[in-house]
Amino acid sequence: MKLARFSLGKTERFGIVDLEKSVIRPFDVSVQNVVQIIAQTAELLSAAAKGEEIPLDQIKLLAPIIPRRNIFCVGKNYREHAKEFAGSGYEAGAVKGAEIDEYPAVFSKPPSTVVGNGDAVQLHSHVTHCVDYEAELAIVIGKGGSDIAAANAMDHVWGYTIINDVTARDRQRQHKQWFLGKSLDTFCPMGPWVTSADEVKSDGLDVKCWVNGDLRQDANTRDLIFPIPALIATISAGLALEPGDVIATGTPAGVGIGFNPPRFLKAGDEVKISITGLGTLTNRFV
Amino acid sequence: MKLARFSLGKTERFGIVDLEKSVIRPFDVSVQNVVQIIAQTAELLSAAAKGEEIPLDQIKLLAPIIPRRNIFCVGKNYREHAKEFAGSGYEAGAVKGAEIDEYPAVFSKPPSTVVGNGDAVQLHSHVTHCVDYEAELAIVIGKGGSDIAAANAMDHVWGYTIINDVTARDRQRQHKQWFLGKSLDTFCPMGPWVTSADEVKSDGLDVKCWVNGDLRQDANTRDLIFPIPALIATISAGLALEPGDVIATGTPAGVGIGFNPPRFLKAGDEVKISITGLGTLTNRFV
Repeated sequence: MKLARFSLGKTERFGIVDLEKSVIRPFDVSVQNVVQIIAQTAELLSAAAKGEEIPLDQIKLLAPIIPRRNIFCVGKNYREHAKEFAGSGYEAGAVKGAEIDEYPAVFSKPPSTVVGNGDAVQLHSHVTHCVDYEAELAIVIGKGGSDIAAANAMDHVWGYTIINDVTARDRQRQHKQWFLGKSLDTFCPMGPWVTSADEVKSDGLDVKCWVNGDLRQDANTRDLIFPIPALIATISAGLALEPGDVIATGTPAGVGIGFNPPRFLKAGDEVKISITGLGTLTNRFV
Repeated sequence: MKLARFSLGKTERFGIVDLEKSVIRPFDVSVQNVVQIIAQTAELLSAAAKGEEIPLDQIKLLAPIIPRRNIFCVGKNYREHAKEFAGSGYEAGAVKGAEIDEYPAVFSKPPSTVVGNGDAVQLHSHVTHCVDYEAELAIVIGKGGSDIAAANAMDHVWGYTIINDVTARDRQRQHKQWFLGKSLDTFCPMGPWVTSADEVKSDGLDVKCWVNGDLRQDANTRDLIFPIPALIATISAGLALEPGDVIATGTPAGVGIGFNPPRFLKAGDEVKISITGLGTLTNRFV
């Protein structure tokens, strides 16, 4: 099941995407937030979306989740990316030979960063000239809980979506803590929808990212240093995860600072991210 | 004006504290969140709270803000604390002679960490054995905005409160990014209320913290490395601040890791923080 939030005219609704027919079936019932939806079973959801069919090309997709709190994010979770970051000069405190962390680097982005597929991402050129892309698989939590054991972690996953963890590299380096460099308004494109876990084998997904059609990132989630169950166990230790929480799992090699000189994004650039079974997330930088 | 959120029986309300009479005057109108309140003028607020008087000893104070997103936090913002942290062995990547940062370290705590005065703070001993206190002046934003100039920053401050930026030092060090060590459930006591800016000269406040009656932190906000206007300008650059946002300004020297050996908190410990004009925030660790 592909769960989307969309607008048609001035109305915002949730619905189920049918890619074969290129339509979306809106829920009959009024829904304020995706959390209300993911609390339901797949059967109830399908039943609630059996009527009307709206062609996908008539709607505007919105970010599938309206986050109720920060997005949880993981850094340096692919070996080749950890090396390119450490070698780029943009990692504060980088130590040669110690590029791979013993514990995952976890940080957050405020909910105000989230935009949807097709939305513009602000370059904030009065704040930074070093805006970079990061294609990432994101987990959407269905069942909340704290102290979740890795062995049970997948029971807490409702589904998956794509995130572009946009980053201002100068601010990431200057402030040492990554939060400010990760948190400028519009710096978290998310979508195009959330695909339920039953449709996805999350440990073998291709993650690809193009800038203006040029393939920059091409990796597979089997290469995550800290796999999804470990991330859920680590983050939920003493911190209750809630339905609708989003965890971005880290980006592979091929970001702009992986090049010499770095290839930062500029006005008009289009970043497109595809992940197996999750669709394509496209955003233009302005 | 001292704005508080409180419970009396099963009802949660907001009101204005009168310390001379030791009473709270609840707002006549129904209020869901403090953001509705701080949008009003002082005159309207006083008018809305002219009736009933409830003795303070009959109510339970709650965290004055129900945060709508992460708490913004600043690290290493007093010189002596920056030195004690760097020398403690708990700062990942500490460099001798470079204890003072050129740019403020900004991180965040999720809203789920916030508890009120008198609430228990969980030690999470299955996750950490290195729980530490951090007494801090916190700013409450009244008027939102992005790219706020330092010269205008104080116009955006509605008032001030106290925060205990409770920290699991082992997780702060292991994960390098501080988020996880700062974000365990109940790790952000806040209160006892919010004092409006007109009553407070925020650049000359004494910040004191006691553990079981033993004075541990004793400093003045005039010693902030990055003063409040600079923090607001830095954080709001490309990131729109919203009414009700909370910014914790950093802790002075005297935290548990400033001692050798470190003095971590244990079950039954009481941490009490007082800041000039803002009251006292007391929490027991369990």
